[in-house]
Amino acid sequence: MSSHDIFTGEIIGTAVLTLLGGGVCAAVTLKRSKARNAGWLAITFGWGFAVLTAAYISAPLSGAHLNPAVTLGLAIEGGTKWSDVPVYLGGQILGAMLGAVLVWLAYYGQFHAHLTDPEIVGDAKAVEAREREAGPVLGIFSTGPEIRNVVQNVVTEVIATIILVLAILTQGLNGDGKGLGVIGVLITSLVVVGIGLSIGGPTGYAINPVRDLGPRIVHSLLPLPNKGGSDWSYAWIPVVGPLIGGAIAGGIYNIAFA
Amino acid sequence: MSSHDIFTGEIIGTAVLTLLGGGVCAAVTLKRSKARNAGWLAITFGWGFAVLTAAYISAPLSGAHLNPAVTLGLAIEGGTKWSDVPVYLGGQILGAMLGAVLVWLAYYGQFHAHLTDPEIVGDAKAVEAREREAGPVLGIFSTGPEIRNVVQNVVTEVIATIILVLAILTQGLNGDGKGLGVIGVLITSLVVVGIGLSIGGPTGYAINPVRDLGPRIVHSLLPLPNKGGSDWSYAWIPVVGPLIGGAIAGGIYNIAFA
Amino acid sequence: MSSHDIFTGEIIGTAVLTLLGGGVCAAVTLKRSKARNAGWLAITFGWGFAVLTAAYISAPLSGAHLNPAVTLGLAIEGGTKWSDVPVYLGGQILGAMLGAVLVWLAYYGQFHAHLTDPEIVGDAKAVEAREREAGPVLGIFSTGPEIRNVVQNVVTEVIATIILVLAILTQGLNGDGKGLGVIGVLITSLVVVGIGLSIGGPTGYAINPVRDLGPRIVHSLLPLPNKGGSDWSYAWIPVVGPLIGGAIAGGIYNIAFA
Amino acid sequence: MSSHDIFTGEIIGTAVLTLLGGGVCAAVTLKRSKARNAGWLAITFGWGFAVLTAAYISAPLSGAHLNPAVTLGLAIEGGTKWSDVPVYLGGQILGAMLGAVLVWLAYYGQFHAHLTDPEIVGDAKAVEAREREAGPVLGIFSTGPEIRNVVQNVVTEVIATIILVLAILTQGLNGDGKGLGVIGVLITSLVVVGIGLSIGGPTGYAINPVRDLGPRIVHSLLPLPNKGGSDWSYAWIPVVGPLIGGAIAGGIYNIAFA
Repeated sequence: MSSHDIFTGEIIGTAVLTLLGGGVCAAVTLKRSKARNAGWLAITFGWGFAVLTAAYISAPLSGAHLNPAVTLGLAIEGGTKWSDVPVYLGGQILGAMLGAVLVWLAYYGQFHAHLTDPEIVGDAKAVEAREREAGPVLGIFSTGPEIRNVVQNVVTEVIATIILVLAILTQGLNGDGKGLGVIGVLITSLVVVGIGLSIGGPTGYAINPVRDLGPRIVHSLLPLPNKGGSDWSYAWIPVVGPLIGGAIAGGIYNIAFA
Repeated sequence: MSSHDIFTGEIIGTAVLTLLGGGVCAAVTLKRSKARNAGWLAITFGWGFAVLTAAYISAPLSGAHLNPAVTLGLAIEGGTKWSDVPVYLGGQILGAMLGAVLVWLAYYGQFHAHLTDPEIVGDAKAVEAREREAGPVLGIFSTGPEIRNVVQNVVTEVIATIILVLAILTQGLNGDGKGLGVIGVLITSLVVVGIGLSIGGPTGYAINPVRDLGPRIVHSLLPLPNKGGSDWSYAWIPVVGPLIGGAIAGGIYNIAFA
Repeated sequence: MSSHDIFTGEIIGTAVLTLLGGGVCAAVTLKRSKARNAGWLAITFGWGFAVLTAAYISAPLSGAHLNPAVTLGLAIEGGTKWSDVPVYLGGQILGAMLGAVLVWLAYYGQFHAHLTDPEIVGDAKAVEAREREAGPVLGIFSTGPEIRNVVQNVVTEVIATIILVLAILTQGLNGDGKGLGVIGVLITSLVVVGIGLSIGGPTGYAINPVRDLGPRIVHSLLPLPNKGGSDWSYAWIPVVGPLIGGAIAGGIYNIAFA
Repeated sequence: MSSHDIFTGEIIGTAVLTLLGGGVCAAVTLKRSKARNAGWLAITFGWGFAVLTAAYISAPLSGAHLNPAVTLGLAIEGGTKWSDVPVYLGGQILGAMLGAVLVWLAYYGQFHAHLTDPEIVGDAKAVEAREREAGPVLGIFSTGPEIRNVVQNVVTEVIATIILVLAILTQGLNGDGKGLGVIGVLITSLVVVGIGLSIGGPTGYAINPVRDLGPRIVHSLLPLPNKGGSDWSYAWIPVVGPLIGGAIAGGIYNIAFA
């Protein structure tokens, strides 16, 4: 794969990922969305099929990492050259931001209706914002913990990301050895549904630094009324936790599977 | 593929698509249906498996476009001859109308029970109909926006359709190069579930001109009591939006993937 | 395939089908089941994965028809010899009855708790039983219409079964031509989920004569307290409707696909 | 496969299984989890994708039994050497305990918040604990019956496990004969969703001795406040029932399929 293809593929793929992933959170959260209150199962399947769509589209170009924790795990394992890592990361963070902007465009009217509703904004200002410096729609962009505790939040993200990256690393052993196969994409997406259902409860399962950081930057820049803070004090946890998890998964793979 | 097979395949496939897609909307909406109020997850999986069934049945005949936006994207990409485009479109619009008639036949008693219920009809007449010229069952046939705004509604349909057509165009790169494979059909159907969950909130994700226009024509012709208007002022948006999206997807593909 | 393998395979497969299919209805219906009120999505996925499990287990022996409508469609298409049809049917009806007995054993305590609950039994006797001669648990065994109308109920079953059998008949064109492949089993099961979501609302989608008749016979024989009638006046519709649908699907296939 | 690989693979795989399986129960049960009250469909899909993830990761090392009932069925069928059985069992029980500890770590704050809530603990002490000697969170670790009846609970577990093991044994006939294929892993996981939906109502479908016993041991050892008893009087049923089921499935396979 050329650097050009990697960069293009990761931008497109990660944009699709955060468009569809942020989209399902917007769909379930915002006033005047047909999917309002569709529930946790909708969110977890929505994120899983976001991975499916994004990886399917970008796999032919870049191999569909879409996630620095995956890139790190693959670099440790040896499947990705360390010299390609910056290209992957650059495409990923740009794509993640682009996707968040697309969520805003697709749900423009819903964002406005939601954020100018006195009940929602008043309620969020009084209760949530005090508790976590987050406004009423930050959850559409980035994750936040139910119980704010640095150690526990990091541990949860580490555990969840180990599972994700380990499943991706074993694809080579399960498949035909020629990179990310189509069945591997499908299974990975269902693994992500599973991680969401099973380990998503405490922190909202970022399991991907750019999926959280990119949309958080966009949230801080967008001209949304009454949007509240971007909760920057939490922002490092969904970056550091998944990177630790990806590195541990790479290590486990090299010890137990290689 | 012969023109005859394309025409037959698209009629059968698009009829199955709008039968099952309209069917799940009828199932969830109508009085005295066992699935009443089954929710948004049922609708999105219902439409996804409608695509799966329709594409699986018609792929051997026509390659299962079932959607003018897909046909347009494939023609731009080069996979479909421009001279075949009219045959595809003709089969698609006829099939979409036929499927809507079959929904009516399968739910005949439910339609009658629903549309002669004074509470439902009265309520719809007073509230909804004033707001969008649409009667209480138009949503079973065609899409309508939660917030009526021409620019935003078009943008949402364009974004959603780009994702769909891009996923279909990359099938050739992911598969064995011999046309639409079975795994590609499965993945496309889950992509459609994902698009519904993630971008369906504002407009109900037509992402297919005939899926919306065909059943809307049938709605205007069927002898349903108290059916209300067919909302023709909105009808061009789910036609034009998806076509723009399909064309953009074809362009992105030719620039980034070819 | 030998007659012996066909007979064995169809008994085992159809027993698994009605065990798991009836099981999910028991799980959602009965008092003191952990799944009580899990909803229509649970029922449709439950039946779909019942098909998946049953077909996966029995395909190596009998090709996994598990349904006289499928056998009829395949005989018309030519994939199944007419002389094998009675063997298929015999195995299917025996298996369907065996599966219903297994539901009763697996949910023995729940059946008793439910059927001796004065509120449930009293309510069912007063309301439902008068309306359709059906007791409070017949729906776990067999289907019944929401609106009782011979023509409409037959039409709905015919339409739904055409879709099922057409999808099964096109497997040979989609697959490798060597009989029922594993991917074909998976897709068929998701097609069944889709049919349930989309056309299940009016009659509960029997789409299979023995799936309805076998458990109905078992219902009439089981020593369940306060079980109510077995609704024999409806029993012919989920037999005749699916057979007509299977025959029409075979005809469509021979005309359009062969 | 070497004994070393089997042991490692079963530890890792079964740990992933009980981490994700216990995780979804924690997610749906515990106070201050984002998934609270997500319902039975979330639990059954969560356990199914737990199997998918665990089997996909461990299949290259150990063939992914992850369950003594599966190991027993495969030993009876002949696919697994009897001399390997103790290695499988050792890895499985250790992995199952490790996974339960990881659930505790991932949901540490949620466990504390839940178990120190006076309403939850008081309620559980008064009602549930009296009825089944089980505290308010044992269900996250191990199964328990809705109606306590030795014979019925064993029968339900036997029936459910026969289906599971029979589906796994027929993989060799459905696949390419080279051990557990990737599609086989996917289908098995959906079979487990189906078993949960259809036969999970009475006992919570252990269908795996170590999945129940390992976490139960961990529950009895963890320093959780107000955790209640570990319901040891029931503990043998989800061990013995699945083993009987696995043995019967092996027998059925040898008689009908071999």
